[in-house]
Amino acid sequence: MKSVYRFGSGRADGSAQMKDLLGGKGANLAEMVNLGLPVPAGFTISTTVCVHYMKNGDYPADLAGEVKSSLEHIEQQAGRKFGDPKAPLLLSCRSGARASMPGMMETVLNIGLCERTLPGLAAMTGDERFAYDAYRRLLTMYADVVMEKAEGIEPKDGQGIRARLEVLMRELKERTGHSSDADLTAADLKGLCAAYKARIAETFGKPFPEDPQEQLWGSIRAVFRSWNGKRAVAYRRIENLPDEWGTAVNVQAMVFGNMGDTSATGVAFTRNPATGDARFYGEWLRNAQGEDVVAGIRTPNPLNAASRNVRNEAMESLETAMPGLYAELDRYRGILEKHFRDMQDLEFTIENGKLYMLQTRTGKRTGVAALNIAMDMLGEGLIDERTVLLRVQPSQLDELLHPILDPAAERDASLLGEGLPAGPGGATGRVVFTAADAIAWSRREKADPVILVREETSPEDIDGMRSAAGILTARGGMTSHAALVARGWGKCCIVGAKDTKVDAAAKKLTIHGSVFAEGDWLTLNGTRGRVYAGKVAMMDATEQPRFQQFMDLADKYRKMVVRTNAETPGDAALARRLGAGGIGLFRTEHMFYGKGSDVPLFLLRKMILSRTTKERRAALDELFVHVKAVVKGTLEAMDGLPVTIRLLDPPLHEFVPKAADKQAALAKSLGVTVEDVRKRGEDLHESNPMMGHRGVRLGITYPEVTEMQARAIFEAAAELLAAKKQPVPEIMVPVTCEVKELEHQNAIIARVHGEVCRKAGLSKIPHMVGTMIEIPRAALLADEMARAAEFFSFGTNDLTQMTFGFSRDDAAAFLPEYLGKRLLKADPFQTIDQTSVGKLIEMAVKRGRATRPDLEVGICGEHGGDPESVKFCYRVGMDYVSCSPFRVPIARLAAAQAAIEDEADSSIEKRS
Amino acid sequence: MKSVYRFGSGRADGSAQMKDLLGGKGANLAEMVNLGLPVPAGFTISTTVCVHYMKNGDYPADLAGEVKSSLEHIEQQAGRKFGDPKAPLLLSCRSGARASMPGMMETVLNIGLCERTLPGLAAMTGDERFAYDAYRRLLTMYADVVMEKAEGIEPKDGQGIRARLEVLMRELKERTGHSSDADLTAADLKGLCAAYKARIAETFGKPFPEDPQEQLWGSIRAVFRSWNGKRAVAYRRIENLPDEWGTAVNVQAMVFGNMGDTSATGVAFTRNPATGDARFYGEWLRNAQGEDVVAGIRTPNPLNAASRNVRNEAMESLETAMPGLYAELDRYRGILEKHFRDMQDLEFTIENGKLYMLQTRTGKRTGVAALNIAMDMLGEGLIDERTVLLRVQPSQLDELLHPILDPAAERDASLLGEGLPAGPGGATGRVVFTAADAIAWSRREKADPVILVREETSPEDIDGMRSAAGILTARGGMTSHAALVARGWGKCCIVGAKDTKVDAAAKKLTIHGSVFAEGDWLTLNGTRGRVYAGKVAMMDATEQPRFQQFMDLADKYRKMVVRTNAETPGDAALARRLGAGGIGLFRTEHMFYGKGSDVPLFLLRKMILSRTTKERRAALDELFVHVKAVVKGTLEAMDGLPVTIRLLDPPLHEFVPKAADKQAALAKSLGVTVEDVRKRGEDLHESNPMMGHRGVRLGITYPEVTEMQARAIFEAAAELLAAKKQPVPEIMVPVTCEVKELEHQNAIIARVHGEVCRKAGLSKIPHMVGTMIEIPRAALLADEMARAAEFFSFGTNDLTQMTFGFSRDDAAAFLPEYLGKRLLKADPFQTIDQTSVGKLIEMAVKRGRATRPDLEVGICGEHGGDPESVKFCYRVGMDYVSCSPFRVPIARLAAAQAAIEDEADSSIEKRS
Repeated sequence: MKSVYRFGSGRADGSAQMKDLLGGKGANLAEMVNLGLPVPAGFTISTTVCVHYMKNGDYPADLAGEVKSSLEHIEQQAGRKFGDPKAPLLLSCRSGARASMPGMMETVLNIGLCERTLPGLAAMTGDERFAYDAYRRLLTMYADVVMEKAEGIEPKDGQGIRARLEVLMRELKERTGHSSDADLTAADLKGLCAAYKARIAETFGKPFPEDPQEQLWGSIRAVFRSWNGKRAVAYRRIENLPDEWGTAVNVQAMVFGNMGDTSATGVAFTRNPATGDARFYGEWLRNAQGEDVVAGIRTPNPLNAASRNVRNEAMESLETAMPGLYAELDRYRGILEKHFRDMQDLEFTIENGKLYMLQTRTGKRTGVAALNIAMDMLGEGLIDERTVLLRVQPSQLDELLHPILDPAAERDASLLGEGLPAGPGGATGRVVFTAADAIAWSRREKADPVILVREETSPEDIDGMRSAAGILTARGGMTSHAALVARGWGKCCIVGAKDTKVDAAAKKLTIHGSVFAEGDWLTLNGTRGRVYAGKVAMMDATEQPRFQQFMDLADKYRKMVVRTNAETPGDAALARRLGAGGIGLFRTEHMFYGKGSDVPLFLLRKMILSRTTKERRAALDELFVHVKAVVKGTLEAMDGLPVTIRLLDPPLHEFVPKAADKQAALAKSLGVTVEDVRKRGEDLHESNPMMGHRGVRLGITYPEVTEMQARAIFEAAAELLAAKKQPVPEIMVPVTCEVKELEHQNAIIARVHGEVCRKAGLSKIPHMVGTMIEIPRAALLADEMARAAEFFSFGTNDLTQMTFGFSRDDAAAFLPEYLGKRLLKADPFQTIDQTSVGKLIEMAVKRGRATRPDLEVGICGEHGGDPESVKFCYRVGMDYVSCSPFRVPIARLAAAQAAIEDEADSSIEKRS
Repeated sequence: MKSVYRFGSGRADGSAQMKDLLGGKGANLAEMVNLGLPVPAGFTISTTVCVHYMKNGDYPADLAGEVKSSLEHIEQQAGRKFGDPKAPLLLSCRSGARASMPGMMETVLNIGLCERTLPGLAAMTGDERFAYDAYRRLLTMYADVVMEKAEGIEPKDGQGIRARLEVLMRELKERTGHSSDADLTAADLKGLCAAYKARIAETFGKPFPEDPQEQLWGSIRAVFRSWNGKRAVAYRRIENLPDEWGTAVNVQAMVFGNMGDTSATGVAFTRNPATGDARFYGEWLRNAQGEDVVAGIRTPNPLNAASRNVRNEAMESLETAMPGLYAELDRYRGILEKHFRDMQDLEFTIENGKLYMLQTRTGKRTGVAALNIAMDMLGEGLIDERTVLLRVQPSQLDELLHPILDPAAERDASLLGEGLPAGPGGATGRVVFTAADAIAWSRREKADPVILVREETSPEDIDGMRSAAGILTARGGMTSHAALVARGWGKCCIVGAKDTKVDAAAKKLTIHGSVFAEGDWLTLNGTRGRVYAGKVAMMDATEQPRFQQFMDLADKYRKMVVRTNAETPGDAALARRLGAGGIGLFRTEHMFYGKGSDVPLFLLRKMILSRTTKERRAALDELFVHVKAVVKGTLEAMDGLPVTIRLLDPPLHEFVPKAADKQAALAKSLGVTVEDVRKRGEDLHESNPMMGHRGVRLGITYPEVTEMQARAIFEAAAELLAAKKQPVPEIMVPVTCEVKELEHQNAIIARVHGEVCRKAGLSKIPHMVGTMIEIPRAALLADEMARAAEFFSFGTNDLTQMTFGFSRDDAAAFLPEYLGKRLLKADPFQTIDQTSVGKLIEMAVKRGRATRPDLEVGICGEHGGDPESVKFCYRVGMDYVSCSPFRVPIARLAAAQAAIEDEADSSIEKRS
């Protein structure tokens, strides 16, 4: 098997199709050569060699020979010889994996420079200073990358060779009185190189290798080894890339952008990666090397007029400075974009007036840009509608739906710490420590926004949470109370912030040692989970012009319905505007939280504290009025669309106040003793409420509670029918594990249905009765469950909890470590774990439909808004997914993509 | 299909094999006839008719005809005619299901008596009083059973017809001045019958039917309907009998034991049902009806010398009173026992010197009797060894292992209430309310035993629980803390006692309104879950002579190993004596509870409160010594047998004291602030600890904890090896859900193993590393788990919790209602739910062995001691079950039965 692939002068062994073998960089270099673009000659050592090296610690037998002959090929193309004292060929050696891992692996430049070839380079370029500067750079990189890092040498006193060499540079500058590198003379640099070499030899106990071949092979080995370097491994963990891929190594003739004023270097995007603007965009530097552009030490020049901004508006553009070369570059831009049919990220170097292309790859972009570019390219006929939809990651839509931090301002902001990105968007505001304070501060005249900071939130904080611009908690996971509520509202929220102490009593927040008091400014990036000190500028990315068109396109290909989780007419209307095709989860208990909940909550508590069934019924009769009102409003807002109403789910103790003063107040208003309230709270206390007396278990032990809810739903629907509306209620029984539970509840619901029909003079009220599948046993016995359920809705939050035995409220203590150590590939509360929870779901759908072929199947857990999970739901044949209103567009796009990917899969199947 | 099966005069249509069709009573009546025994002629209407009636509300078309001709058959046999005014045939109509449901369904006697036939009966018997008494009995039964209950008529003011008729009897007695029924004259009874009939007509708006045919059909219908009567339904729920069986109806010629001094009636057992003594045993009454013997109003006479006891020793026996008839009965006893090869429960009536057999069925017996009878019959050659083992229910062995209440004393005791039978045996003692009081009372000179009464118990009560003779808690389920601990010790315990309030502060216990203070006597029957007031006599049933022989026999057929759950050398030795083949579950954390735990618990707390890894390591080094000591002692006690040691399992917050004073004491002894202790406790607090930071999750986040335990185990083993012992440690990683967790822990264990071996100069220490399968995900991914596990041990407690979503600590709030309403067939924490948890287990065993064919598989949950679950474990191919020491003999027997039943199944398979 061939190990080395050459490219140069219009011919390449490889192509863009060969990314797995050549890595992204190598494959695209080959492709550019095939397209006739000027690329310095070179060759790519394939990823299979890396895999071989990782496994065996040495190279395949043929490699040395292939490298030798390929090197001769470069020499031929470049017209110079490697190691030639007169006109030495210099080489670069760069990594390049299948997927881009920017900055994560190593590069060595100027390979082939040594005492013997230095004079040749100086003569050839007519610039001795340049030659020694190049040598200095090689010495630094080689010592750092090859001699230290690749050998796994732990630096003494934590000070690596790079720092130890920089000390010499600093000393030289102090001695010579020069403040800038550029002021150093050739002689200065020559002396510095000698000092560098001495320190290298002293540090590693062996000298810098003067043999160009040894330099080349050392560099190749270092690049391969850098695949398993700390940074690369960490990056792969974050990005979920497999360790088995390995990297390719690209060896290429060096070209120099720093050979004088007719030389330059730059990076460019074929379109603006921040906005999607369809004009060429980039930066360049005269007489510089590529690393200088990205290092951020010098402010680069704008590529052209379209690339000007506040920082560079006065600077010369390439377009005006070197119009011919700019035109050539612009031509290549056209060729590459037409060829790759996507926005490209380019690197180029101009050496003595000659343009070389060093890299092209698909450019990273913001969500806004992704959408605009895709829509533009559709208009330009570059891509088709399906491709448009696949070009935007569903999660990128988030950006368009929430206010965000101004990226430029965020770059300059002072990062305090990180937490879990629980609610999207950005928020800047003044710190408050209690829900009451959040409300009080927000009510002030000309109120600044507030950031509510809590150890963790509870349902009692709801109003304060709503008043806050952002929420920060020290504890909790991605599905903790704060996270669920914030995400439901599309509110910026960070939970489980690391090294964060919240002392609400003292009104003191400490993050990584920084202390904040009430009223201090704090800024959150909820999309990335970052916390900044002070005030950071915000930006409004909503109402993008193309957004609606794009979503219409998604709906054209989408086959699965997207519903929403909503409990109020307002949220229902919002979700409908965002494209929801109904409500997949109406949580009855939400009427007992937050604003306007005083009366219903009081009645619920009265019910809970009843001593007899008679008292309980009386309280329920009063509560009924309120339940009916909310249900009716929501059914009306979703007129004509299904609304899945879940019967009361949480354990009752959640509603009994725990604080002594609140217990006293409740006792007083109910006319019972404090002891009664305290005792009832104690009686209801549970060790593991998640697996306690909740859901259908309440409906079994208190059938009158189910009855009241059924009556509220049917009476609401009957009244709407009378008003010529089309209510479509779907009654959902939660936490079932056994078909007999469902039969028990169905009997009550059927009886109430009959009674309400008789009263209203209707033959029937259209509705369905189904169940939530959220307990493993229900999934295992889905064939039986379907006997009594007209629909299944997978409650994947609880199903994940039970299947993993992970309490989502407590998993923060170990789950981050599991993800960090890669014991789990992804947070199962964010993305359905297909090997376990997914298996149960698939099994349940299949068995359920075997019993009842027209069984309606959906999902209403938080996963309903996770793109990967949405695709899974489509594949297993669900009728709908349901998610919080602000995630509806994301789910719509994910569903469209799933349908398109499925088409593609089936057409591949047909062909094969 | 035939609906009616006749019997009488040496010929019967049915036989004992036809129980499904004829019910137990009908089949055995037929069998007695076939055996030539004197049985009053009759016929049985099959259970299929009942099923038909339940489904359609009417009878099969042929029934009327078949009944008519069968009735003629009885008339022929009896030589009397039904409805004949001269010599009327009277009939009984009795239920009879497949399985005995004593007293749960209805019976009507004396059918055929009416104004028209009364004089005939009086003439025929020469006893007018007898005739009116019979008529009165018919009127009462018919009105009650047929006219009221079978019609589902709700009695006015809660007073049923039976009570309304009894009022008349009472009034008559008052009027006549007679205190006993027997003193009433024929004329009295005649008037009473008229009054009865008037009240019946007035109550139901229709008269008592004078037509014998109508009486017969009414009675048949009433018996069928009684299958769905409240009592019958409730009984089937308790006994887990299917509703679909239906009952048969037995119509039979009446014989009368109350026709004078040559008449009698009695019940007998072919052997003593309480002790198993191989002599005939029974009771009889002269001139009485069967119901008089069981009603308990008159003390019955002893059947023979062997039946004498303190209550009846002076009374005449049948053996002496009617020696001929006794001899005849004794002959039938021999025939029946030889035929059925089991102890029989007989009913007989003597009518005017002629003996009739009315029933035979397999007799119920105590555990002691079951064992003795089976062993005796083996000696007599009646049954083979396999049958001996199948004759004793594993749960009956419980009786032989614990002190019990004297059954006679219990009968007379004052029942206060009931709870869940959590720990076996009986206990009588003085009430105490705290663990400390339990210890204090027990330490007094000549201390009376104490009953520890708690709201619920916690690990801190352990010493008090050990000091107590019995434990009673108001809360908790069968697997609550108290229940688990008590069962582990074989200690009498009742949990979740109904209507029980415990006020520990006031030292007041209230059960159903009865109040007990500290020091009051209370008695518990932990086997039946009954609570009695005062002191009740105890009995020692242990050390039965046959016990060892019987268990040896069980071991001869048993193929599956039975291990024990034990944590101390003492328990290990006890379990070994009871036949344990190793330890299946050694819970490391038990060393932190109870006696002698002060130092280890302090060190554990020190570890928990460490602020750095270094501090934690220091605390662990100290703790190591203690862990090693306990492990070593236990390995030594189980020398040569495997000991499965589970790594630390509970969440750490369980070990941080919650009370302020204890926190203060701990802070002081650790030299930290109270605030440190409080804060750490708070940080560790979990919403759902069952699914929180525990098990392997601790080992992942604190690898040094796993390391310490591994070192303790290997060093203990190495020291024992040096002492020429054979330690067989099996290290078990708990709460895993993913193979990578196991790989992570395995790496630590393997490293420590290597280190200890090097230090001890050993090439290896024999051991296994495996995992507990207790999380659904682990079961679903068992094929992967087996890659890194040499054994699986199913933790069915947690697996049941997760699969059902039932917290066992909280399920008491709804599980009893689920069982009461038959939403679930059995408590899944007692018996493995084979449809869900069982499915997961089966799947996991199969998949695990597919990966690793020699995978060792066992169970260590509480189910390991449940006979039905043990049989399930055998069927799915487990190598062992493990249970608490006192359940080891039970599991041994269950395992033997499973092997025997499996032989039978496979020989049936071979034959078919």
